[in-house]
Amino acid sequence: MSEDLFDKHRATLDRAVEACRTRHSWSAYSDAPGAHPGGEDARRAGEEAFRAQLGRPFEMDHPGPLVRQADEVSPYTGEPLGISYPAAPADTLFGAAKRAWPAWRDAAPTTRVGVCLEICSRIYEQAFELAFATMHTAGQSFGMSYTGSGTNALDRGIEAVAQAYSAMDRVPGEARWSRDFGTSTVTLAKRYRLAPRGIAVVIACASFPAWNVYPALLASLATGNPVILKPHPTSVLQMAHAVRICRRVLGEAGFSPGLVGLAVDSVAEPVAKQLVEHPETRIVDFTGSAAFGSWVEANAFPAVAYTETSGVNSVLIDSMDDPGPVLRALAGSLCLFSAQMCTSPQNIYVPRDGIPTAAGRMKPDEFAGALAEAIRAVSTVPRRAASVMATVQSAQTLRLLDQVRDLTAARGQVILEPEPYAHPEFPVARTSGPLLGMIDVADHDLFGEERFGPAAFVITADGSDQALERAAGDAAEHGAITAFAYSTSEDFLDRAESAYAVAGAALTSNVTGPMPLNFSAAYSDYHVTGLNPAGNASLTDESFIAGRFRVTQSRRPA
Amino acid sequence: MSEDLFDKHRATLDRAVEACRTRHSWSAYSDAPGAHPGGEDARRAGEEAFRAQLGRPFEMDHPGPLVRQADEVSPYTGEPLGISYPAAPADTLFGAAKRAWPAWRDAAPTTRVGVCLEICSRIYEQAFELAFATMHTAGQSFGMSYTGSGTNALDRGIEAVAQAYSAMDRVPGEARWSRDFGTSTVTLAKRYRLAPRGIAVVIACASFPAWNVYPALLASLATGNPVILKPHPTSVLQMAHAVRICRRVLGEAGFSPGLVGLAVDSVAEPVAKQLVEHPETRIVDFTGSAAFGSWVEANAFPAVAYTETSGVNSVLIDSMDDPGPVLRALAGSLCLFSAQMCTSPQNIYVPRDGIPTAAGRMKPDEFAGALAEAIRAVSTVPRRAASVMATVQSAQTLRLLDQVRDLTAARGQVILEPEPYAHPEFPVARTSGPLLGMIDVADHDLFGEERFGPAAFVITADGSDQALERAAGDAAEHGAITAFAYSTSEDFLDRAESAYAVAGAALTSNVTGPMPLNFSAAYSDYHVTGLNPAGNASLTDESFIAGRFRVTQSRRPA
Repeated sequence: MSEDLFDKHRATLDRAVEACRTRHSWSAYSDAPGAHPGGEDARRAGEEAFRAQLGRPFEMDHPGPLVRQADEVSPYTGEPLGISYPAAPADTLFGAAKRAWPAWRDAAPTTRVGVCLEICSRIYEQAFELAFATMHTAGQSFGMSYTGSGTNALDRGIEAVAQAYSAMDRVPGEARWSRDFGTSTVTLAKRYRLAPRGIAVVIACASFPAWNVYPALLASLATGNPVILKPHPTSVLQMAHAVRICRRVLGEAGFSPGLVGLAVDSVAEPVAKQLVEHPETRIVDFTGSAAFGSWVEANAFPAVAYTETSGVNSVLIDSMDDPGPVLRALAGSLCLFSAQMCTSPQNIYVPRDGIPTAAGRMKPDEFAGALAEAIRAVSTVPRRAASVMATVQSAQTLRLLDQVRDLTAARGQVILEPEPYAHPEFPVARTSGPLLGMIDVADHDLFGEERFGPAAFVITADGSDQALERAAGDAAEHGAITAFAYSTSEDFLDRAESAYAVAGAALTSNVTGPMPLNFSAAYSDYHVTGLNPAGNASLTDESFIAGRFRVTQSRRPA
Repeated sequence: MSEDLFDKHRATLDRAVEACRTRHSWSAYSDAPGAHPGGEDARRAGEEAFRAQLGRPFEMDHPGPLVRQADEVSPYTGEPLGISYPAAPADTLFGAAKRAWPAWRDAAPTTRVGVCLEICSRIYEQAFELAFATMHTAGQSFGMSYTGSGTNALDRGIEAVAQAYSAMDRVPGEARWSRDFGTSTVTLAKRYRLAPRGIAVVIACASFPAWNVYPALLASLATGNPVILKPHPTSVLQMAHAVRICRRVLGEAGFSPGLVGLAVDSVAEPVAKQLVEHPETRIVDFTGSAAFGSWVEANAFPAVAYTETSGVNSVLIDSMDDPGPVLRALAGSLCLFSAQMCTSPQNIYVPRDGIPTAAGRMKPDEFAGALAEAIRAVSTVPRRAASVMATVQSAQTLRLLDQVRDLTAARGQVILEPEPYAHPEFPVARTSGPLLGMIDVADHDLFGEERFGPAAFVITADGSDQALERAAGDAAEHGAITAFAYSTSEDFLDRAESAYAVAGAALTSNVTGPMPLNFSAAYSDYHVTGLNPAGNASLTDESFIAGRFRVTQSRRPA
């Protein structure tokens, strides 16, 4: 059965391995909901299934009493989802994982890879129901829930499986070794076993859980480790679906469902530290705040930790021929999911004496005004705003945004007030257009850290070199995942590329057009470098895989 | 010049890469001193150069005032080496490394790999002088100094370079990526840069430094990181030679010698913690005690740590046809370098009611007596003892051995007293034959931890399954690198293989004959698994390489 799964998904695996190698564009599943094999019926059925789940227990063969998750409230309706999940104590989850482990550990890597790819395929089958779950927990638009948190996140998961497969495949199963000692020849038969590291804890974030959970979960599973998944207490449902699918596929393949457990906690009583510090924990994958991420990195030992936190992403406006497409691209990126993505830009540097364009110098306030206008073209048009900005996941984000707005007004100029828009389908949806402030490079205390949510600054600097130095310095010191530059000077772009490479941020230069600026493609774009405080893990380099298993060997006379 | 070095060593690299892939037997350099291209003259010249160095400053273009290293005393002659080394403060070394870094970081991986392989080749050129340095610091025999600490250690270094090369080679330099967004096609040109992590600190042990230093030093250098090497204060000379060779080769290739610095400390004023905690440290490689290794693992953050410490290596005697070859193999392994190797066995389990052999059951005391006899055949014959046991590196080891002897006498039986032998060439050499005790599996407090040096126990257990459970349990809990089993039962060997695989110790079964039991072959034997407290790093799996560099990327419209 399990070998059948490997054969069944072999073509997908081969294409994923090849895409990782060449880093060209490829996707296992279409981004278009209309291309889903279930068709329009599947969408309808998915939405119905989602609605039918509301207010009811989440049925799953999983230990623990059912407890209603009070923290899970739809950012669209303001209503609690009212779903009860099995709430198993940590020791129960670790006990189940430990009992389930040996058979999984000893299974062939191809068996495990086959099961992992089947899990992806089942998640895709249920893509619509999971997309509605994402919408009403993370607060994303349906489109982003289906793609960014759906097919694209699955691609990142398949990428991790492909990299795990390649890494395991590079270790030979056996060798015949022959060498002279004095006048004798000694010949040994050697066997090499892949030894998984142990129980993995995956801690997910609230606003975009699948993007990091799928790679972490699947990298650990593929390399033979049990996984305990702890969703953010406000964003459980999609992750509960993923766990249920994992457990079903594992059970069907003859393994214990205990290999993947769900740890549900609450805002009032978090369990993340307890899971990280559990004596059986050997791997921790964490996505969330920089503060807690640093704690995880420093305290996970003896577990190995993979983190993605956050950073201050920057845009350098050095020079441009035509401001229009640049402004539209930037506006789109500032609006996308109300800038609640770890790749969203925040700090936009412009030269104090104006930006050279084909039509002459564009003054900073002129640029800021035009950018505000480009934002308004999205943020004040409800249908566009709904599909691009969606909602704000947490009420706390709006409170912080208010504070940043007041700080900005006190120090510089508020170019665009962060105003809600009326969602055409969900009248009480929690929404906010971006705050756009204009401040100076001297106001570093204001922009030198991440201001989570839709807050962006146009920052006047003496020139592009000062801007680059400040932005790359902040990336190195406070973390950054992305960086963006617009320049007509090859020389400047070269310097920016070098500086951001050292600072560990991925640079996108002179990109305009229909691709969201901060779109990150599985198999092609490395996500997070591990070189600055925005996280120590990279999707998906070899170090994301290598620590999850080791090699043990035996040898005897041949 | 640097590309010439890559071409010059291309054949060596290709063979090393291939050997890592197939894990067959290969060596870059012959183990036989007679095969050295310099011939007998080279040996004589090496010895003369070593002698000429005694009592004099170690000439090297390196910052820091020359300070006489009082802790460095030959275990053979009892005389201080009297050599002065440049003693640079940590900040000077970090400053030099930081200044030297950008050119090395930005160099092509092939350039760096070429330089690393040239370093290996130069170390081999000076093999004799370095072997005498090893002899009179680590206390090894000339033979082991030339091979184990020479050619074999260089093979481990080349293996690390080969793995680093392969890992870097798997990251493409660029890609053309094309994808539809709506009705438009977006095509981006992407560039991927290898981004070294930063300054690496290598902390060496006293008795076998090259084995771990060469791989650590070369893995970090090849992937683009500067290295600060801190030898053990009693064992500096060989490492100073290695640093001088690195600096010369780097300088000749047009790079700053500051890329490899020597940090010399003293027993009274150690600097290891200061180096590990230095804010510029990004990588730490540590070989030494389990206690300090644990501290390094827990405190290296934000640096990544690679450790090899020590463990309790075990031998399971389940059954055997002919005891003779087994006893000789065990005796050889217990005598080899007076069991001062991290791979030396310590705990030898036998069934309480005797070991089945072709000639009937061999009782535990009969086995212990025969093993003592086999040891004496080495340890009391000065010429054999000199070539196999050599000396005891530290006087502290003899003091600990005395304590273990008394504990053993109080709890069980001393089968063989740890007695010195008279070295035929060096009358005052610090030597000791093994202590062989006979105790019971109940005396776990005595054998459950590593007793460094020539101490071994015959441990009576109820049966082989109890022995396996105890030995594998100790390996998992207290660490172990090697394990050995002798059995005529395939079933038992299978169980032992599985249990030790889970415990993370490499198992050698039924090996007798001329190969030292604990011989570990570069390119073929993984050394340390990282799965138990004997260390978190493995020579050389992909995780030993993967954390030393990351990938940063840029993209722009094609």
